[in-house]
Amino acid sequence: MIVTRYLEFETFIGEVRNITSDVQEAVKSSGLCAGIATVFVPGATGAVTTMEYEDGLVKDLGEALERLFPQSIDYAHNQRWHDGNGHSHIQAAFFGPSLNVPFSEQGLSLGTWQQIVFLELDNRHRRRRIIVQLMGE
Amino acid sequence: MIVTRYLEFETFIGEVRNITSDVQEAVKSSGLCAGIATVFVPGATGAVTTMEYEDGLVKDLGEALERLFPQSIDYAHNQRWHDGNGHSHIQAAFFGPSLNVPFSEQGLSLGTWQQIVFLELDNRHRRRRIIVQLMGE
Amino acid sequence: MIVTRYLEFETFIGEVRNITSDVQEAVKSSGLCAGIATVFVPGATGAVTTMEYEDGLVKDLGEALERLFPQSIDYAHNQRWHDGNGHSHIQAAFFGPSLNVPFSEQGLSLGTWQQIVFLELDNRHRRRRIIVQLMGE
Repeated sequence: MIVTRYLEFETFIGEVRNITSDVQEAVKSSGLCAGIATVFVPGATGAVTTMEYEDGLVKDLGEALERLFPQSIDYAHNQRWHDGNGHSHIQAAFFGPSLNVPFSEQGLSLGTWQQIVFLELDNRHRRRRIIVQLMGE
Repeated sequence: MIVTRYLEFETFIGEVRNITSDVQEAVKSSGLCAGIATVFVPGATGAVTTMEYEDGLVKDLGEALERLFPQSIDYAHNQRWHDGNGHSHIQAAFFGPSLNVPFSEQGLSLGTWQQIVFLELDNRHRRRRIIVQLMGE
Repeated sequence: MIVTRYLEFETFIGEVRNITSDVQEAVKSSGLCAGIATVFVPGATGAVTTMEYEDGLVKDLGEALERLFPQSIDYAHNQRWHDGNGHSHIQAAFFGPSLNVPFSEQGLSLGTWQQIVFLELDNRHRRRRIIVQLMGE
Protein backbone atom coordinates (compact mmCIF):
# COMPACT_ATOMS: atom_id res chain seq x y z
CA MET A 1 0.00 0.00 0.00
CA ILE A 2 1.15 3.50 -0.86
CA VAL A 3 0.13 6.72 0.84
CA THR A 4 1.38 10.15 -0.26
CA ARG A 5 1.42 13.21 1.97
CA TYR A 6 2.77 16.72 1.45
CA LEU A 7 4.42 19.11 3.89
CA GLU A 8 4.07 22.77 2.95
CA PHE A 9 5.88 25.63 4.63
CA GLU A 10 7.67 28.94 4.10
CA THR A 11 11.41 28.94 4.72
CA PHE A 12 14.06 31.54 5.47
CA ILE A 13 17.62 31.70 4.09
CA GLY A 14 19.85 29.15 5.77
CA GLU A 15 16.96 27.48 7.58
CA VAL A 16 17.48 24.05 9.05
CA ARG A 17 13.91 22.99 9.71
CA ASN A 18 12.96 20.13 12.00
CA ILE A 19 10.20 18.23 10.18
CA THR A 20 10.29 15.08 12.31
CA SER A 21 6.87 15.51 13.90
CA ASP A 22 5.30 16.28 10.50
CA VAL A 23 6.69 13.07 9.01
CA GLN A 24 5.64 11.14 12.11
CA GLU A 25 2.13 12.58 11.78
CA ALA A 26 2.05 11.45 8.13
CA VAL A 27 2.93 7.92 9.24
CA LYS A 28 0.28 7.92 11.98
CA SER A 29 -2.50 9.23 9.76
CA SER A 30 -1.66 6.80 6.93
CA GLY A 31 -3.01 3.77 8.74
CA LEU A 32 0.11 1.82 7.74
CA CYS A 33 1.80 -0.17 10.46
CA ALA A 34 5.29 -0.87 9.06
CA GLY A 35 7.24 0.21 6.01
CA ILE A 36 9.48 2.91 4.59
CA ALA A 37 8.91 6.67 4.61
CA THR A 38 10.60 8.37 1.67
CA VAL A 39 11.01 12.12 2.21
CA PHE A 40 11.71 13.85 -1.10
CA VAL A 41 12.48 17.47 -2.04
CA PRO A 42 11.10 18.32 -5.48
CA GLY A 43 13.61 21.06 -6.26
CA ALA A 44 17.30 21.63 -6.88
CA THR A 45 18.23 23.94 -3.98
CA GLY A 46 16.96 22.08 -0.92
CA ALA A 47 17.88 18.85 0.83
CA VAL A 48 16.81 16.48 3.59
CA THR A 49 18.97 14.58 6.05
CA THR A 50 18.96 13.65 9.73
CA MET A 51 20.85 15.23 12.61
CA GLU A 52 20.60 16.05 16.29
CA TYR A 53 18.57 19.23 16.13
CA GLU A 54 20.21 21.68 18.54
CA ASP A 55 21.36 25.28 18.06
CA GLY A 56 25.06 24.46 18.13
CA LEU A 57 24.90 21.92 15.32
CA VAL A 58 22.58 24.09 13.24
CA LYS A 59 25.29 26.76 13.34
CA ASP A 60 28.07 24.23 12.70
CA LEU A 61 26.27 22.81 9.68
CA GLY A 62 25.86 26.26 8.15
CA GLU A 63 29.55 26.95 8.66
CA ALA A 64 30.55 23.62 7.12
CA LEU A 65 28.40 24.35 4.06
CA GLU A 66 30.00 27.76 3.61
CA ARG A 67 33.52 26.39 4.20
CA LEU A 68 33.18 23.59 1.64
CA PHE A 69 30.96 25.36 -0.91
CA PRO A 70 31.53 29.11 -0.43
CA GLN A 71 28.93 31.48 -1.78
CA SER A 72 31.61 33.97 -2.88
CA ILE A 73 33.73 31.89 -5.27
CA ASP A 74 33.10 31.86 -9.01
CA TYR A 75 30.29 29.69 -10.30
CA ALA A 76 29.62 29.31 -14.00
CA HIS A 77 25.96 29.06 -13.06
CA ASN A 78 26.01 32.59 -11.62
CA GLN A 79 27.83 34.01 -14.63
CA ARG A 80 25.13 32.67 -16.87
CA TRP A 81 21.94 33.11 -14.85
CA HIS A 82 22.89 35.94 -12.45
CA ASP A 83 20.80 34.54 -9.62
CA GLY A 84 23.76 34.08 -7.29
CA ASN A 85 22.78 30.63 -6.04
CA GLY A 86 25.41 28.45 -7.69
CA HIS A 87 26.57 27.31 -4.26
CA SER A 88 22.97 26.34 -3.36
CA HIS A 89 22.72 24.02 -6.35
CA ILE A 90 26.07 22.34 -5.73
CA GLN A 91 25.34 21.86 -2.02
CA ALA A 92 21.97 20.29 -2.86
CA ALA A 93 23.52 17.95 -5.45
CA PHE A 94 25.99 16.70 -2.82
CA PHE A 95 23.30 16.06 -0.21
CA GLY A 96 20.76 14.58 -2.57
CA PRO A 97 17.00 15.15 -2.46
CA SER A 98 15.78 11.98 -0.76
CA LEU A 99 15.85 10.27 2.60
CA ASN A 100 14.39 6.93 3.66
CA VAL A 101 13.35 6.18 7.20
CA PRO A 102 11.88 2.82 8.20
CA PHE A 103 8.84 2.76 10.47
CA SER A 104 7.17 0.04 12.51
CA GLU A 105 4.20 0.02 14.87
CA GLN A 106 3.30 3.39 13.32
CA GLY A 107 6.51 5.00 14.63
CA LEU A 108 9.62 6.22 12.81
CA SER A 109 12.69 4.12 13.68
CA LEU A 110 14.88 7.10 14.55
CA GLY A 111 17.62 7.25 17.17
CA THR A 112 16.96 9.12 20.42
CA TRP A 113 18.68 12.33 19.30
CA GLN A 114 18.09 11.96 15.58
CA GLN A 115 15.69 14.32 13.83
CA ILE A 116 14.64 14.69 10.20
CA VAL A 117 15.58 18.12 8.86
CA PHE A 118 14.90 20.07 5.71
CA LEU A 119 17.81 22.28 4.61
CA GLU A 120 16.93 25.49 2.80
CA LEU A 121 20.06 25.98 0.70
CA ASP A 122 18.74 28.66 -1.66
CA ASN A 123 19.76 32.32 -1.33
CA ARG A 124 16.18 33.51 -0.85
CA HIS A 125 13.22 32.38 1.22
CA ARG A 126 11.01 29.89 -0.52
CA ARG A 127 7.64 28.23 -0.29
CA ARG A 128 8.44 24.49 -0.13
CA ARG A 129 6.26 21.45 -0.71
CA ILE A 130 7.97 18.29 0.46
CA ILE A 131 6.73 14.82 -0.51
CA VAL A 132 6.37 12.09 2.09
CA GLN A 133 5.68 8.80 0.32
CA LEU A 134 4.82 5.91 2.63
CA MET A 135 5.02 2.35 1.42
CA GLY A 136 4.14 -0.50 3.69
CA GLU A 137 1.47 -2.70 5.15
CA MET B 1 4.61 -5.09 -7.35
CA ILE B 2 8.23 -4.82 -8.37
CA VAL B 3 9.58 -4.05 -11.83
CA THR B 4 13.30 -3.91 -12.63
CA ARG B 5 14.77 -2.05 -15.58
CA TYR B 6 18.35 -1.40 -16.66
CA LEU B 7 19.92 1.64 -18.30
CA GLU B 8 23.03 0.88 -20.32
CA PHE B 9 25.38 3.45 -21.78
CA GLU B 10 28.99 4.37 -22.46
CA THR B 11 30.40 7.27 -20.45
CA PHE B 12 33.30 9.68 -20.78
CA ILE B 13 35.60 10.95 -18.02
CA GLY B 14 33.87 13.56 -15.90
CA GLU B 15 30.50 12.97 -17.53
CA VAL B 16 27.39 14.28 -15.82
CA ARG B 17 24.69 12.40 -17.69
CA ASN B 18 21.04 13.39 -17.65
CA ILE B 19 19.10 10.13 -17.28
CA THR B 20 15.74 11.66 -16.35
CA SER B 21 13.89 10.66 -19.49
CA ASP B 22 15.25 7.10 -19.26
CA VAL B 23 13.98 6.71 -15.70
CA GLN B 24 10.67 8.31 -16.68
CA GLU B 25 10.38 5.84 -19.56
CA ALA B 26 11.02 2.96 -17.14
CA VAL B 27 8.15 4.22 -14.96
CA LYS B 28 5.81 4.57 -17.94
CA SER B 29 6.56 1.14 -19.36
CA SER B 30 6.23 -0.57 -15.97
CA GLY B 31 2.48 -0.22 -15.83
CA LEU B 32 2.74 0.97 -12.21
CA CYS B 33 0.78 4.03 -11.27
CA ALA B 34 2.37 5.19 -8.00
CA GLY B 35 5.39 4.21 -5.96
CA ILE B 36 9.12 4.70 -5.56
CA ALA B 37 11.82 4.52 -8.24
CA THR B 38 15.17 3.47 -6.81
CA VAL B 39 18.06 4.33 -9.11
CA PHE B 40 21.15 2.34 -8.14
CA VAL B 41 24.75 2.31 -9.41
CA PRO B 42 26.28 -1.16 -9.11
CA GLY B 43 29.87 -0.01 -8.86
CA ALA B 44 32.23 1.95 -6.63
CA THR B 45 33.22 4.87 -8.90
CA GLY B 46 29.88 6.27 -10.05
CA ALA B 47 26.99 8.05 -8.35
CA VAL B 48 23.47 9.33 -8.89
CA THR B 49 21.90 12.52 -7.61
CA THR B 50 19.59 15.27 -8.85
CA MET B 51 20.43 18.77 -10.08
CA GLU B 52 19.39 21.42 -12.54
CA TYR B 53 21.05 20.13 -15.68
CA GLU B 54 22.68 23.12 -17.35
CA ASP B 55 26.24 23.67 -18.62
CA GLY B 56 27.20 26.10 -15.87
CA LEU B 57 26.34 23.74 -13.02
CA VAL B 58 27.90 20.76 -14.76
CA LYS B 59 31.18 22.73 -14.79
CA ASP B 60 30.68 23.91 -11.20
CA LEU B 61 30.06 20.39 -9.95
CA GLY B 62 33.26 19.12 -11.58
CA GLU B 63 35.23 21.95 -9.97
CA ALA B 64 33.70 21.28 -6.55
CA LEU B 65 34.63 17.59 -6.82
CA GLU B 66 38.23 18.45 -7.72
CA ARG B 67 38.45 21.13 -5.01
CA LEU B 68 37.20 18.84 -2.22
CA PHE B 69 38.68 15.54 -3.43
CA PRO B 70 41.68 16.44 -5.62
CA GLN B 71 42.97 13.84 -8.02
CA SER B 72 46.59 14.86 -7.37
CA ILE B 73 46.93 14.32 -3.60
CA ASP B 74 48.22 11.06 -2.15
CA TYR B 75 45.80 8.17 -1.92
CA ALA B 76 46.81 4.89 -0.28
CA HIS B 77 44.58 3.22 -2.84
CA ASN B 78 46.75 4.52 -5.68
CA GLN B 79 49.98 3.48 -3.96
CA ARG B 80 48.68 -0.05 -3.71
CA TRP B 81 46.75 -0.55 -6.93
CA HIS B 82 48.37 2.01 -9.26
CA ASP B 83 45.12 2.74 -11.09
CA GLY B 84 45.08 6.41 -10.10
CA ASN B 85 41.41 6.56 -9.21
CA GLY B 86 41.55 6.93 -5.44
CA HIS B 87 39.71 10.24 -5.71
CA SER B 88 36.97 8.52 -7.77
CA HIS B 89 36.30 5.98 -5.03
CA ILE B 90 36.20 8.56 -2.24
CA GLN B 91 33.90 10.87 -4.20
CA ALA B 92 31.54 7.97 -4.90
CA ALA B 93 31.49 6.92 -1.23
CA PHE B 94 30.48 10.47 -0.24
CA PHE B 95 27.66 10.65 -2.78
CA GLY B 96 26.37 7.14 -2.26
CA PRO B 97 25.12 4.80 -4.99
CA SER B 98 21.36 5.17 -4.64
CA LEU B 99 18.60 7.69 -5.19
CA ASN B 100 14.87 7.38 -4.56
CA VAL B 101 12.30 9.36 -6.47
CA PRO B 102 8.57 9.00 -5.80
CA PHE B 103 6.20 8.74 -8.75
CA SER B 104 2.45 9.08 -9.10
CA GLU B 105 0.10 8.95 -12.06
CA GLN B 106 3.01 7.34 -13.94
CA GLY B 107 5.14 10.49 -13.61
CA LEU B 108 8.26 11.18 -11.54
CA SER B 109 7.62 13.74 -8.78
CA LEU B 110 10.56 15.98 -9.69
CA GLY B 111 10.77 19.74 -9.39
CA THR B 112 10.55 21.87 -12.53
CA TRP B 113 14.32 22.29 -12.91
CA GLN B 114 15.35 19.07 -11.23
CA GLN B 115 16.90 16.28 -13.28
CA ILE B 116 18.28 12.86 -12.38
CA VAL B 117 21.97 12.62 -13.25
CA PHE B 118 24.54 9.86 -13.33
CA LEU B 119 28.05 11.03 -12.36
CA GLU B 120 30.97 9.24 -13.99
CA LEU B 121 33.63 9.70 -11.31
CA ASP B 122 36.16 7.18 -12.64
CA ASN B 123 39.36 8.26 -14.41
CA ARG B 124 38.51 6.36 -17.58
CA HIS B 125 35.42 5.95 -19.74
CA ARG B 126 33.22 3.08 -18.71
CA ARG B 127 30.32 0.98 -19.87
CA ARG B 128 27.66 1.45 -17.18
CA ARG B 129 24.56 -0.55 -16.35
CA ILE B 130 22.32 1.31 -13.92
CA ILE B 131 19.47 -0.41 -12.09
CA VAL B 132 16.02 1.22 -11.90
CA GLN B 133 13.89 -0.73 -9.43
CA LEU B 134 10.26 0.34 -9.31
CA MET B 135 8.06 -0.63 -6.40
CA GLY B 136 4.45 0.39 -6.33
CA GLU B 137 0.91 -0.33 -7.31
CA MET C 1 5.79 -7.89 2.21
CA ILE C 2 8.05 -6.29 4.78
CA VAL C 3 10.72 -8.01 6.84
CA THR C 4 12.84 -6.20 9.43
CA ARG C 5 16.22 -7.40 10.66
CA TYR C 6 18.79 -5.86 12.98
CA LEU C 7 22.57 -5.96 12.89
CA GLU C 8 24.21 -5.48 16.28
CA PHE C 9 27.91 -4.95 16.85
CA GLU C 10 30.53 -3.07 18.86
CA THR C 11 32.58 -0.51 16.95
CA PHE C 12 35.90 1.24 17.41
CA ILE C 13 36.75 4.90 16.70
CA GLY C 14 37.12 5.49 12.98
CA GLU C 15 35.86 2.03 12.07
CA VAL C 16 34.77 1.38 8.49
CA ARG C 17 32.90 -1.89 8.90
CA ASN C 18 32.03 -4.18 6.02
CA ILE C 19 28.45 -5.32 6.67
CA THR C 20 27.76 -6.72 3.19
CA SER C 21 27.49 -10.35 4.20
CA ASP C 22 25.20 -9.46 7.12
CA VAL C 23 22.81 -7.58 4.82
CA GLN C 24 23.01 -10.42 2.28
CA GLU C 25 22.18 -12.91 5.04
CA ALA C 26 19.16 -10.78 6.01
CA VAL C 27 17.93 -10.92 2.41
CA LYS C 28 18.44 -14.70 2.21
CA SER C 29 16.68 -15.45 5.48
CA SER C 30 13.74 -13.16 4.66
CA GLY C 31 12.29 -15.48 2.07
CA LEU C 32 11.80 -12.50 -0.26
CA CYS C 33 12.93 -12.94 -3.84
CA ALA C 34 13.16 -9.36 -5.18
CA GLY C 35 12.86 -5.88 -3.70
CA ILE C 36 14.73 -3.14 -1.91
CA ALA C 37 16.92 -3.43 1.17
CA THR C 38 16.97 -0.22 3.20
CA VAL C 39 19.92 -0.05 5.59
CA PHE C 40 19.32 2.60 8.24
CA VAL C 41 21.43 3.96 11.10
CA PRO C 42 19.25 5.05 14.02
CA GLY C 43 21.67 7.62 15.41
CA ALA C 44 23.30 10.93 14.56
CA THR C 45 27.00 9.99 14.50
CA GLY C 46 27.11 7.02 12.14
CA ALA C 47 26.51 6.50 8.43
CA VAL C 48 26.17 3.85 5.74
CA THR C 49 27.43 3.96 2.18
CA THR C 50 29.10 1.65 -0.34
CA MET C 51 32.75 1.42 -1.36
CA GLU C 52 35.42 -1.00 -2.44
CA TYR C 53 36.48 -2.36 0.90
CA GLU C 54 40.28 -2.43 0.90
CA ASP C 55 42.84 -1.06 3.37
CA GLY C 56 44.00 1.78 1.12
CA LEU C 57 40.55 3.27 0.64
CA VAL C 58 39.63 2.82 4.29
CA LYS C 59 42.65 5.01 5.12
CA ASP C 60 41.84 7.47 2.33
CA LEU C 61 38.25 7.85 3.51
CA GLY C 62 39.37 8.64 7.06
CA GLU C 63 41.78 11.26 5.73
CA ALA C 64 39.12 12.84 3.54
CA LEU C 65 36.73 13.07 6.51
CA GLU C 66 39.40 14.77 8.65
CA ARG C 67 40.44 17.10 5.81
CA LEU C 68 36.89 18.28 5.08
CA PHE C 69 35.48 18.17 8.62
CA PRO C 70 38.45 18.50 10.97
CA GLN C 71 38.01 17.41 14.56
CA SER C 72 40.14 20.30 15.85
CA ILE C 73 38.26 23.35 14.52
CA ASP C 74 35.64 25.15 16.62
CA TYR C 75 32.19 23.62 16.79
CA ALA C 76 29.36 25.36 18.62
CA HIS C 77 28.15 21.88 19.54
CA ASN C 78 31.35 21.21 21.47
CA GLN C 79 31.25 24.57 23.26
CA ARG C 80 27.79 23.75 24.52
CA TRP C 81 27.91 20.02 25.20
CA HIS C 82 31.64 19.41 25.77
CA ASP C 83 31.56 15.97 24.22
CA GLY C 84 34.01 16.85 21.45
CA ASN C 85 32.10 15.15 18.66
CA GLY C 86 30.84 18.13 16.66
CA HIS C 87 32.73 16.88 13.62
CA SER C 88 31.04 13.45 13.99
CA HIS C 89 27.58 14.97 13.81
CA ILE C 90 28.37 17.16 10.79
CA GLN C 91 30.00 14.27 8.92
CA ALA C 92 26.97 12.07 9.58
CA ALA C 93 24.55 14.78 8.40
CA PHE C 94 26.47 15.05 5.11
CA PHE C 95 26.46 11.28 4.50
CA GLY C 96 22.90 10.67 5.62
CA PRO C 97 21.67 7.68 7.62
CA SER C 98 20.14 5.53 4.91
CA LEU C 99 21.13 3.43 1.92
CA ASN C 100 18.96 1.47 -0.50
CA VAL C 101 20.18 -1.56 -2.37
CA PRO C 102 17.97 -3.50 -4.78
CA PHE C 103 17.97 -7.27 -4.62
CA SER C 104 16.72 -9.95 -6.98
CA GLU C 105 16.85 -13.76 -6.90
CA GLN C 106 17.66 -13.34 -3.19
CA GLY C 107 20.94 -11.57 -3.98
CA LEU C 108 22.00 -7.94 -3.49
CA SER C 109 22.54 -6.15 -6.82
CA LEU C 110 26.00 -4.84 -5.93
CA GLY C 111 28.92 -4.28 -8.27
CA THR C 112 31.83 -6.70 -8.18
CA TRP C 113 34.01 -4.50 -5.95
CA GLN C 114 31.21 -2.73 -4.13
CA GLN C 115 30.59 -3.42 -0.45
CA ILE C 116 28.12 -1.99 2.06
CA VAL C 117 29.95 -0.27 4.91
CA PHE C 118 28.97 1.23 8.23
CA LEU C 119 31.03 4.28 9.21
CA GLU C 120 31.62 4.86 12.91
CA LEU C 121 32.01 8.64 12.96
CA ASP C 122 31.72 9.17 16.72
CA ASN C 123 34.75 9.95 18.90
CA ARG C 124 34.23 6.91 21.10
CA HIS C 125 33.47 3.25 20.50
CA ARG C 126 29.79 2.45 20.41
CA ARG C 127 27.35 -0.42 20.48
CA ARG C 128 25.38 -0.06 17.23
CA ARG C 129 22.08 -1.56 16.14
CA ILE C 130 21.50 -1.08 12.42
CA ILE C 131 18.11 -1.62 10.82
CA VAL C 132 17.76 -3.63 7.61
CA GLN C 133 14.24 -3.25 6.28
CA LEU C 134 13.39 -5.45 3.32
CA MET C 135 10.42 -4.71 1.13
CA GLY C 136 9.59 -6.94 -1.78
CA GLU C 137 7.86 -10.03 -3.02
